[in-house]
Amino acid sequence: MRETFHGELDLIGRTLVDMSEAVALAMGDATSALLDADLPLAEKVISGDVQVDRLRDDLEARALDLLARQQPVAIDLRTVITSLRAVADLERMGDLALHIAKVARMRYPASAVPDEVRGTIGEMGQVALSIVEKTRQVLEGQDISLAEQLEREDDAMDALHRRLFAHLLSGEWTHGIEPAIDITLIGRYYERYADHAVSVARQVIFLVTGEQAPLPTAISTGATETALGV
Amino acid sequence: MRETFHGELDLIGRTLVDMSEAVALAMGDATSALLDADLPLAEKVISGDVQVDRLRDDLEARALDLLARQQPVAIDLRTVITSLRAVADLERMGDLALHIAKVARMRYPASAVPDEVRGTIGEMGQVALSIVEKTRQVLEGQDISLAEQLEREDDAMDALHRRLFAHLLSGEWTHGIEPAIDITLIGRYYERYADHAVSVARQVIFLVTGEQAPLPTAISTGATETALGV
Repeated sequence: MRETFHGELDLIGRTLVDMSEAVALAMGDATSALLDADLPLAEKVISGDVQVDRLRDDLEARALDLLARQQPVAIDLRTVITSLRAVADLERMGDLALHIAKVARMRYPASAVPDEVRGTIGEMGQVALSIVEKTRQVLEGQDISLAEQLEREDDAMDALHRRLFAHLLSGEWTHGIEPAIDITLIGRYYERYADHAVSVARQVIFLVTGEQAPLPTAISTGATETALGV
Repeated sequence: MRETFHGELDLIGRTLVDMSEAVALAMGDATSALLDADLPLAEKVISGDVQVDRLRDDLEARALDLLARQQPVAIDLRTVITSLRAVADLERMGDLALHIAKVARMRYPASAVPDEVRGTIGEMGQVALSIVEKTRQVLEGQDISLAEQLEREDDAMDALHRRLFAHLLSGEWTHGIEPAIDITLIGRYYERYADHAVSVARQVIFLVTGEQAPLPTAISTGATETALGV
Protein backbone atom coordinates (compact mmCIF):
# COMPACT_ATOMS: atom_id res chain seq x y z
CA MET A 1 0.00 0.00 0.00
CA ARG A 2 2.71 2.50 0.96
CA GLU A 3 4.78 1.47 -2.03
CA THR A 4 1.89 2.10 -4.36
CA PHE A 5 1.34 5.40 -2.61
CA HIS A 6 4.91 6.52 -3.12
CA GLY A 7 4.89 5.30 -6.69
CA GLU A 8 1.84 7.43 -7.36
CA LEU A 9 3.36 10.37 -5.54
CA ASP A 10 6.47 10.04 -7.73
CA LEU A 11 4.24 10.12 -10.79
CA ILE A 12 2.65 13.34 -9.56
CA GLY A 13 6.10 14.83 -8.99
CA ARG A 14 7.09 13.74 -12.50
CA THR A 15 4.03 15.51 -13.93
CA LEU A 16 5.03 18.70 -12.13
CA VAL A 17 8.49 18.47 -13.71
CA ASP A 18 6.87 17.87 -17.12
CA MET A 19 4.67 20.91 -16.62
CA SER A 20 7.62 23.09 -15.63
CA GLU A 21 9.35 21.99 -18.85
CA ALA A 22 6.23 22.69 -20.92
CA VAL A 23 5.76 26.20 -19.53
CA ALA A 24 9.49 26.93 -19.94
CA LEU A 25 9.25 25.94 -23.61
CA ALA A 26 6.09 28.01 -23.99
CA MET A 27 7.77 31.06 -22.48
CA GLY A 28 10.89 30.68 -24.61
CA ASP A 29 8.77 30.38 -27.75
CA ALA A 30 6.50 33.26 -26.71
CA THR A 31 9.50 35.54 -26.20
CA SER A 32 10.95 34.61 -29.61
CA ALA A 33 7.54 35.05 -31.25
CA LEU A 34 7.24 38.47 -29.63
CA LEU A 35 10.72 39.73 -30.49
CA ASP A 36 10.82 38.29 -34.01
CA ALA A 37 7.14 38.82 -34.91
CA ASP A 38 7.02 35.08 -35.64
CA LEU A 39 3.38 34.19 -36.22
CA PRO A 40 3.72 30.38 -36.55
CA LEU A 41 5.65 30.29 -33.27
CA ALA A 42 2.99 32.44 -31.56
CA GLU A 43 0.29 30.07 -32.87
CA LYS A 44 2.26 27.11 -31.55
CA VAL A 45 2.32 28.58 -28.03
CA ILE A 46 -1.38 29.47 -28.21
CA SER A 47 -2.53 26.05 -29.40
CA GLY A 48 -0.07 24.25 -27.11
CA ASP A 49 -1.47 25.64 -23.86
CA VAL A 50 -4.25 23.08 -23.89
CA GLN A 51 -1.57 20.44 -23.20
CA VAL A 52 -0.56 22.21 -20.01
CA ASP A 53 -4.21 22.39 -18.96
CA ARG A 54 -4.54 18.67 -19.60
CA LEU A 55 -1.50 17.89 -17.46
CA ARG A 56 -3.07 20.01 -14.71
CA ASP A 57 -6.46 18.23 -14.93
CA ASP A 58 -4.73 14.88 -14.92
CA LEU A 59 -2.56 15.71 -11.91
CA GLU A 60 -5.47 17.12 -9.93
CA ALA A 61 -7.59 14.04 -10.59
CA ARG A 62 -4.76 11.74 -9.50
CA ALA A 63 -3.99 13.80 -6.39
CA LEU A 64 -7.64 13.74 -5.29
CA ASP A 65 -7.85 10.04 -5.98
CA LEU A 66 -4.72 9.50 -3.91
CA LEU A 67 -6.12 11.50 -1.00
CA ALA A 68 -9.40 9.58 -1.11
CA ARG A 69 -7.93 6.10 -1.43
CA GLN A 70 -4.77 6.32 0.65
CA GLN A 71 -5.66 9.00 3.16
CA PRO A 72 -2.08 10.11 3.71
CA VAL A 73 -1.03 12.01 6.81
CA ALA A 74 1.96 14.12 7.90
CA ILE A 75 4.60 14.73 5.23
CA ASP A 76 2.77 12.61 2.64
CA LEU A 77 -0.38 14.70 3.03
CA ARG A 78 1.60 17.92 2.85
CA THR A 79 3.32 16.69 -0.31
CA VAL A 80 0.01 16.08 -2.07
CA ILE A 81 -1.36 19.47 -0.97
CA THR A 82 1.84 21.20 -2.10
CA SER A 83 1.50 19.48 -5.48
CA LEU A 84 -2.02 20.83 -5.85
CA ARG A 85 -0.78 24.34 -5.14
CA ALA A 86 2.19 24.00 -7.46
CA VAL A 87 0.06 22.74 -10.32
CA ALA A 88 -2.16 25.84 -10.08
CA ASP A 89 0.91 28.09 -10.32
CA LEU A 90 2.34 26.14 -13.27
CA GLU A 91 -0.96 26.23 -15.14
CA ARG A 92 -1.08 30.00 -14.65
CA MET A 93 2.48 30.32 -15.98
CA GLY A 94 1.30 28.61 -19.15
CA ASP A 95 -1.50 31.20 -19.42
CA LEU A 96 0.97 34.06 -19.05
CA ALA A 97 3.19 32.70 -21.84
CA LEU A 98 0.00 32.38 -23.91
CA HIS A 99 -0.88 36.03 -23.22
CA ILE A 100 2.54 37.11 -24.50
CA ALA A 101 2.12 34.98 -27.63
CA LYS A 102 -1.27 36.59 -28.22
CA VAL A 103 0.20 40.07 -28.14
CA ALA A 104 2.77 38.90 -30.72
CA ARG A 105 -0.02 37.48 -32.89
CA MET A 106 -2.17 40.61 -32.56
CA ARG A 107 0.57 42.94 -33.79
CA TYR A 108 1.82 40.67 -36.58
CA PRO A 109 3.33 41.40 -39.11
CA ALA A 110 4.64 44.30 -36.99
CA SER A 111 6.53 43.64 -33.77
CA ALA A 112 4.84 44.71 -30.54
CA VAL A 113 8.26 45.64 -29.14
CA PRO A 114 9.90 48.94 -30.14
CA ASP A 115 13.67 48.81 -30.55
CA GLU A 116 14.60 50.67 -27.37
CA VAL A 117 12.88 48.13 -25.08
CA ARG A 118 13.89 45.07 -27.12
CA GLY A 119 16.94 44.45 -24.97
CA THR A 120 15.02 44.72 -21.71
CA ILE A 121 12.21 42.42 -22.88
CA GLY A 122 14.82 39.94 -24.14
CA GLU A 123 16.48 39.97 -20.72
CA MET A 124 13.13 39.48 -18.98
CA GLY A 125 12.58 36.45 -21.17
CA GLN A 126 16.02 35.08 -20.27
CA VAL A 127 15.55 35.62 -16.54
CA ALA A 128 12.11 33.99 -16.74
CA LEU A 129 13.70 30.91 -18.33
CA SER A 130 16.52 30.84 -15.83
CA ILE A 131 14.05 31.00 -12.94
CA VAL A 132 11.76 28.28 -14.30
CA GLU A 133 14.81 26.08 -14.94
CA LYS A 134 15.70 26.37 -11.25
CA THR A 135 12.11 25.66 -10.31
CA ARG A 136 12.37 22.50 -12.41
CA GLN A 137 15.55 21.50 -10.60
CA VAL A 138 13.91 22.09 -7.23
CA LEU A 139 10.93 19.98 -8.32
CA GLU A 140 13.15 17.26 -9.69
CA GLY A 141 15.72 16.87 -6.99
CA GLN A 142 14.39 19.14 -4.32
CA ASP A 143 17.74 20.91 -4.44
CA ILE A 144 16.93 23.54 -1.89
CA SER A 145 20.34 25.21 -2.20
CA LEU A 146 18.87 26.98 -5.23
CA ALA A 147 16.64 29.10 -2.98
CA GLU A 148 19.08 31.96 -2.69
CA GLN A 149 19.75 32.11 -6.43
CA LEU A 150 16.01 32.15 -7.06
CA GLU A 151 15.61 35.17 -4.78
CA ARG A 152 18.40 36.98 -6.62
CA GLU A 153 16.87 36.25 -10.01
CA ASP A 154 13.46 37.32 -8.79
CA ASP A 155 15.05 40.62 -7.74
CA ALA A 156 16.68 40.84 -11.19
CA MET A 157 13.25 40.43 -12.80
CA ASP A 158 11.84 43.24 -10.65
CA ALA A 159 14.78 45.47 -11.62
CA LEU A 160 14.14 44.77 -15.32
CA HIS A 161 10.47 45.52 -14.79
CA ARG A 162 11.40 48.90 -13.29
CA ARG A 163 13.78 49.56 -16.17
CA LEU A 164 10.98 48.83 -18.63
CA PHE A 165 8.78 51.48 -16.98
CA ALA A 166 11.71 53.90 -16.91
CA HIS A 167 11.91 53.54 -20.72
CA LEU A 168 8.21 54.22 -21.09
CA LEU A 169 8.39 57.28 -18.84
CA SER A 170 11.72 58.65 -20.05
CA GLY A 171 10.11 61.37 -22.14
CA GLU A 172 11.81 59.84 -25.16
CA TRP A 173 8.99 57.41 -25.87
CA THR A 174 7.82 58.25 -29.38
CA HIS A 175 5.57 55.26 -30.07
CA GLY A 176 2.37 56.55 -28.56
CA ILE A 177 -0.21 54.90 -26.35
CA GLU A 178 -0.89 51.53 -27.97
CA PRO A 179 2.67 50.18 -27.80
CA ALA A 180 2.91 51.62 -24.27
CA ILE A 181 -0.13 49.55 -23.26
CA ASP A 182 1.36 46.46 -24.92
CA ILE A 183 4.66 46.91 -23.11
CA THR A 184 2.95 47.59 -19.76
CA LEU A 185 0.99 44.35 -19.99
CA ILE A 186 3.89 42.32 -21.39
CA GLY A 187 6.08 43.50 -18.51
CA ARG A 188 3.43 42.46 -16.03
CA TYR A 189 3.12 39.01 -17.66
CA TYR A 190 6.86 38.33 -17.29
CA GLU A 191 6.89 39.55 -13.72
CA ARG A 192 3.87 37.42 -12.74
CA TYR A 193 5.37 34.39 -14.50
CA ALA A 194 8.51 34.75 -12.39
CA ASP A 195 6.43 35.22 -9.22
CA HIS A 196 4.57 31.97 -9.84
CA ALA A 197 7.80 30.08 -10.63
CA VAL A 198 9.42 31.34 -7.43
CA SER A 199 6.24 30.47 -5.53
CA VAL A 200 6.42 26.83 -6.70
CA ALA A 201 10.07 26.56 -5.68
CA ARG A 202 9.37 28.15 -2.28
CA GLN A 203 6.56 25.73 -1.58
CA VAL A 204 8.73 22.71 -2.39
CA ILE A 205 11.59 24.12 -0.30
CA PHE A 206 9.17 24.71 2.58
CA LEU A 207 8.00 21.13 2.27
CA VAL A 208 11.56 19.84 2.54
CA THR A 209 12.88 22.15 5.24
CA GLY A 210 9.71 23.06 7.10
CA GLU A 211 10.94 26.63 7.07
CA GLN A 212 8.63 29.22 5.64
CA ALA A 213 10.62 31.71 3.62
CA PRO A 214 9.34 35.28 3.79
CA LEU A 215 6.98 36.11 0.94
CA PRO A 216 8.75 37.65 -2.03
CA THR A 217 8.24 41.40 -2.12
CA ALA A 218 6.80 41.15 -5.59
CA ILE A 219 3.98 38.93 -4.40
CA SER A 220 3.28 40.49 -1.02
CA THR A 221 3.38 44.12 -2.03
CA GLY A 222 3.10 44.13 -5.80
CA ALA A 223 6.21 45.05 -7.73
CA THR A 224 4.04 47.29 -9.85
CA GLU A 225 4.05 49.98 -7.24
CA THR A 226 7.81 50.19 -7.44
CA ALA A 227 7.66 49.82 -11.18
CA LEU A 228 5.29 52.74 -11.46
CA GLY A 229 7.23 54.71 -8.90
CA VAL A 230 10.41 54.92 -10.97
CA MET B 1 -16.53 12.24 14.96
CA ARG B 2 -18.62 13.10 11.88
CA GLU B 3 -20.40 15.81 13.84
CA THR B 4 -17.09 17.37 14.80
CA PHE B 5 -15.99 17.07 11.21
CA HIS B 6 -19.01 18.89 9.86
CA GLY B 7 -18.73 21.51 12.57
CA GLU B 8 -15.17 22.19 11.50
CA LEU B 9 -16.16 22.21 7.85
CA ASP B 10 -18.86 24.77 8.65
CA LEU B 11 -16.24 26.91 10.34
CA ILE B 12 -14.08 26.75 7.22
CA GLY B 13 -17.08 27.75 5.11
CA ARG B 14 -17.73 30.62 7.52
CA THR B 15 -14.13 31.82 7.11
CA LEU B 16 -14.55 31.83 3.31
CA VAL B 17 -17.66 34.00 3.69
CA ASP B 18 -15.74 36.32 6.04
CA MET B 19 -12.93 36.57 3.49
CA SER B 20 -15.33 37.36 0.67
CA GLU B 21 -16.74 40.18 2.83
CA ALA B 22 -13.26 41.46 3.67
CA VAL B 23 -12.13 41.57 0.03
CA ALA B 24 -15.43 43.19 -1.01
CA LEU B 25 -14.87 45.92 1.57
CA ALA B 26 -11.26 46.30 0.44
CA MET B 27 -12.31 46.65 -3.20
CA GLY B 28 -15.06 49.16 -2.38
CA ASP B 29 -12.61 51.24 -0.35
CA ALA B 30 -9.87 50.94 -2.98
CA THR B 31 -12.22 52.21 -5.70
CA SER B 32 -13.29 55.17 -3.55
CA ALA B 33 -9.69 55.91 -2.63
CA LEU B 34 -8.77 55.82 -6.32
CA LEU B 35 -11.63 57.99 -7.59
CA ASP B 36 -11.53 60.51 -4.73
CA ALA B 37 -7.75 60.55 -4.21
CA ASP B 38 -8.49 59.63 -0.58
CA LEU B 39 -5.15 58.83 1.06
CA PRO B 40 -6.40 57.64 4.48
CA LEU B 41 -8.78 55.22 2.76
CA ALA B 42 -5.96 53.94 0.51
CA GLU B 43 -3.79 53.42 3.62
CA LYS B 44 -6.65 51.55 5.30
CA VAL B 45 -6.88 49.09 2.39
CA ILE B 46 -3.10 48.66 2.29
CA SER B 47 -2.68 48.00 6.01
CA GLY B 48 -5.87 45.90 6.13
CA ASP B 49 -4.69 43.26 3.66
CA VAL B 50 -2.70 41.50 6.37
CA GLN B 51 -6.05 40.52 7.93
CA VAL B 52 -7.07 38.72 4.74
CA ASP B 53 -3.70 36.95 4.69
CA ARG B 54 -4.25 35.88 8.30
CA LEU B 55 -7.68 34.45 7.51
CA ARG B 56 -6.06 32.53 4.66
CA ASP B 57 -3.28 31.14 6.85
CA ASP B 58 -5.79 30.18 9.51
CA LEU B 59 -8.12 28.44 7.04
CA GLU B 60 -5.28 26.55 5.36
CA ALA B 61 -3.97 25.31 8.69
CA ARG B 62 -7.41 24.14 9.77
CA ALA B 63 -8.12 22.47 6.41
CA LEU B 64 -4.84 20.54 6.55
CA ASP B 65 -5.47 19.56 10.13
CA LEU B 66 -8.92 18.33 9.16
CA LEU B 67 -7.53 16.26 6.29
CA ALA B 68 -4.89 14.71 8.54
CA ARG B 69 -7.12 13.94 11.50
CA GLN B 70 -10.41 13.01 9.85
CA GLN B 71 -9.28 11.69 6.49
CA PRO B 72 -12.48 12.60 4.70
CA VAL B 73 -13.53 10.93 1.45
CA ALA B 74 -16.00 11.62 -1.36
CA ILE B 75 -17.94 14.88 -1.10
CA ASP B 76 -16.32 15.81 2.23
CA LEU B 77 -12.83 15.53 0.74
CA ARG B 78 -13.88 17.52 -2.32
CA THR B 79 -15.32 20.20 -0.06
CA VAL B 80 -12.04 20.64 1.80
CA ILE B 81 -10.03 20.74 -1.45
CA THR B 82 -12.47 23.26 -2.95
CA SER B 83 -12.05 25.41 0.16
CA LEU B 84 -8.27 25.39 -0.30
CA ARG B 85 -8.68 26.53 -3.89
CA ALA B 86 -11.23 29.18 -3.01
CA VAL B 87 -9.05 30.63 -0.26
CA ALA B 88 -6.19 31.11 -2.73
CA ASP B 89 -8.50 33.05 -5.07
CA LEU B 90 -9.89 35.18 -2.25
CA GLU B 91 -6.43 36.02 -0.95
CA ARG B 92 -5.42 37.11 -4.44
CA MET B 93 -8.52 39.31 -4.69
CA GLY B 94 -7.32 41.08 -1.55
CA ASP B 95 -3.95 41.66 -3.25
CA LEU B 96 -5.62 43.15 -6.31
CA ALA B 97 -7.64 45.61 -4.19
CA LEU B 98 -4.34 46.45 -2.46
CA HIS B 99 -2.68 47.13 -5.83
CA ILE B 100 -5.47 49.57 -6.73
CA ALA B 101 -5.11 51.32 -3.37
CA LYS B 102 -1.36 51.62 -3.97
CA VAL B 103 -1.89 53.36 -7.30
CA ALA B 104 -4.23 55.80 -5.49
CA ARG B 105 -1.57 56.40 -2.81
CA MET B 106 1.22 56.84 -5.34
CA ARG B 107 -0.60 59.56 -7.28
CA TYR B 108 -1.94 61.40 -4.20
CA PRO B 109 -2.76 64.31 -3.94
CA ALA B 110 -3.62 64.00 -7.64
CA SER B 111 -6.10 61.40 -8.84
CA ALA B 112 -4.73 58.56 -10.98
CA VAL B 113 -7.97 58.59 -12.98
CA PRO B 114 -8.53 61.26 -15.68
CA ASP B 115 -12.11 62.54 -15.96
CA GLU B 116 -13.00 60.77 -19.19
CA VAL B 117 -12.40 57.27 -17.76
CA ARG B 118 -13.80 58.05 -14.30
CA GLY B 119 -17.23 56.71 -15.22
CA THR B 120 -15.85 53.47 -16.66
CA ILE B 121 -13.58 52.83 -13.67
CA GLY B 122 -16.49 53.58 -11.32
CA GLU B 123 -18.62 51.03 -13.17
CA MET B 124 -15.83 48.44 -13.02
CA GLY B 125 -15.73 48.97 -9.26
CA GLN B 126 -19.51 48.51 -9.02
CA VAL B 127 -19.53 45.36 -11.15
CA ALA B 128 -16.63 43.96 -9.08
CA LEU B 129 -18.68 44.49 -5.90
CA SER B 130 -21.80 43.02 -7.44
CA ILE B 131 -19.86 39.92 -8.51
CA VAL B 132 -18.17 39.39 -5.15
CA GLU B 133 -21.53 39.83 -3.40
CA LYS B 134 -22.91 36.96 -5.50
CA THR B 135 -19.81 34.93 -4.74
CA ARG B 136 -20.52 35.53 -1.04
CA GLN B 137 -24.11 34.35 -1.50
CA VAL B 138 -22.93 31.23 -3.31
CA LEU B 139 -20.45 30.54 -0.48
CA GLU B 140 -23.05 31.18 2.19
CA GLY B 141 -26.03 29.33 0.89
CA GLN B 142 -24.58 27.60 -2.12
CA ASP B 143 -27.32 29.29 -4.16
CA ILE B 144 -26.31 27.92 -7.50
CA SER B 145 -29.07 29.77 -9.34
CA LEU B 146 -26.73 32.78 -9.29
CA ALA B 147 -24.42 31.09 -11.81
CA GLU B 148 -26.06 32.65 -14.84
CA GLN B 149 -26.06 36.16 -13.35
CA LEU B 150 -22.38 35.75 -12.52
CA GLU B 151 -21.58 34.90 -16.13
CA ARG B 152 -23.48 37.96 -17.32
CA GLU B 153 -21.68 40.24 -14.89
CA ASP B 154 -18.35 38.73 -15.84
CA ASP B 155 -19.18 39.60 -19.46
CA ALA B 156 -20.11 43.11 -18.33
CA MET B 157 -16.70 43.47 -16.70
CA ASP B 158 -14.98 42.37 -19.92
CA ALA B 159 -17.05 44.91 -21.90
CA LEU B 160 -16.02 47.68 -19.48
CA HIS B 161 -12.41 46.58 -19.81
CA ARG B 162 -12.67 46.90 -23.59
CA ARG B 163 -14.31 50.31 -23.23
CA LEU B 164 -11.43 51.42 -21.03
CA PHE B 165 -8.90 50.51 -23.75
CA ALA B 166 -11.09 52.21 -26.35
CA HIS B 167 -10.78 55.43 -24.32
CA LEU B 168 -7.00 55.08 -24.16
CA LEU B 169 -6.75 54.43 -27.90
CA SER B 170 -9.37 56.91 -29.09
CA GLY B 171 -6.80 59.44 -30.23
CA GLU B 172 -8.35 61.90 -27.78
CA TRP B 173 -6.17 60.77 -24.89
CA THR B 174 -4.27 63.89 -23.82
CA HIS B 175 -2.78 62.67 -20.56
CA GLY B 176 0.36 61.07 -21.87
CA ILE B 177 2.04 57.80 -21.01
CA GLU B 178 2.09 57.63 -17.20
CA PRO B 179 -1.69 57.86 -16.69
CA ALA B 180 -2.11 55.42 -19.61
CA ILE B 181 0.10 52.92 -17.75
CA ASP B 182 -1.86 53.46 -14.53
CA ILE B 183 -5.19 52.92 -16.29
CA THR B 184 -3.90 49.85 -18.15
CA LEU B 185 -2.84 48.22 -14.88
CA ILE B 186 -5.91 49.34 -12.93
CA GLY B 187 -8.15 47.88 -15.64
CA ARG B 188 -6.28 44.60 -15.44
CA TYR B 189 -6.62 44.51 -11.62
CA TYR B 190 -10.41 44.89 -11.79
CA GLU B 191 -10.70 42.27 -14.49
CA ARG B 192 -8.55 39.76 -12.59
CA TYR B 193 -10.46 40.44 -9.37
CA ALA B 194 -13.70 39.55 -11.17
CA ASP B 195 -12.10 36.44 -12.69
CA HIS B 196 -11.06 35.16 -9.27
CA ALA B 197 -14.50 35.90 -7.76
CA VAL B 198 -16.23 34.04 -10.59
CA SER B 199 -13.72 31.21 -10.19
CA VAL B 200 -14.64 30.77 -6.50
CA ALA B 201 -18.36 30.71 -7.31
CA ARG B 202 -17.84 28.21 -10.15
CA GLN B 203 -15.88 25.88 -7.89
CA VAL B 204 -18.61 25.90 -5.24
CA ILE B 205 -21.31 25.39 -7.87
CA PHE B 206 -19.32 22.49 -9.33
CA LEU B 207 -19.06 20.99 -5.85
CA VAL B 208 -22.84 21.14 -5.42
CA THR B 209 -23.94 20.08 -8.89
CA GLY B 210 -21.01 17.99 -10.04
CA GLU B 211 -21.25 19.82 -13.34
CA GLN B 212 -18.12 21.50 -14.59
CA ALA B 213 -19.02 24.82 -16.14
CA PRO B 214 -16.87 25.80 -19.12
CA LEU B 215 -13.97 28.03 -18.16
CA PRO B 216 -14.82 31.71 -18.42
CA THR B 217 -13.39 33.22 -21.57
CA ALA B 218 -11.55 35.80 -19.54
CA ILE B 219 -9.58 33.13 -17.71
CA SER B 220 -9.04 30.64 -20.49
CA THR B 221 -8.05 33.02 -23.25
CA GLY B 222 -7.15 36.25 -21.48
CA ALA B 223 -9.60 39.12 -21.89
CA THR B 224 -6.64 41.36 -22.56
CA GLU B 225 -6.37 40.19 -26.10
CA THR B 226 -9.87 41.39 -26.81
CA ALA B 227 -9.20 44.47 -24.75
CA LEU B 228 -6.18 45.29 -26.84
CA GLY B 229 -7.96 44.34 -30.01
CA VAL B 230 -10.59 47.09 -29.78
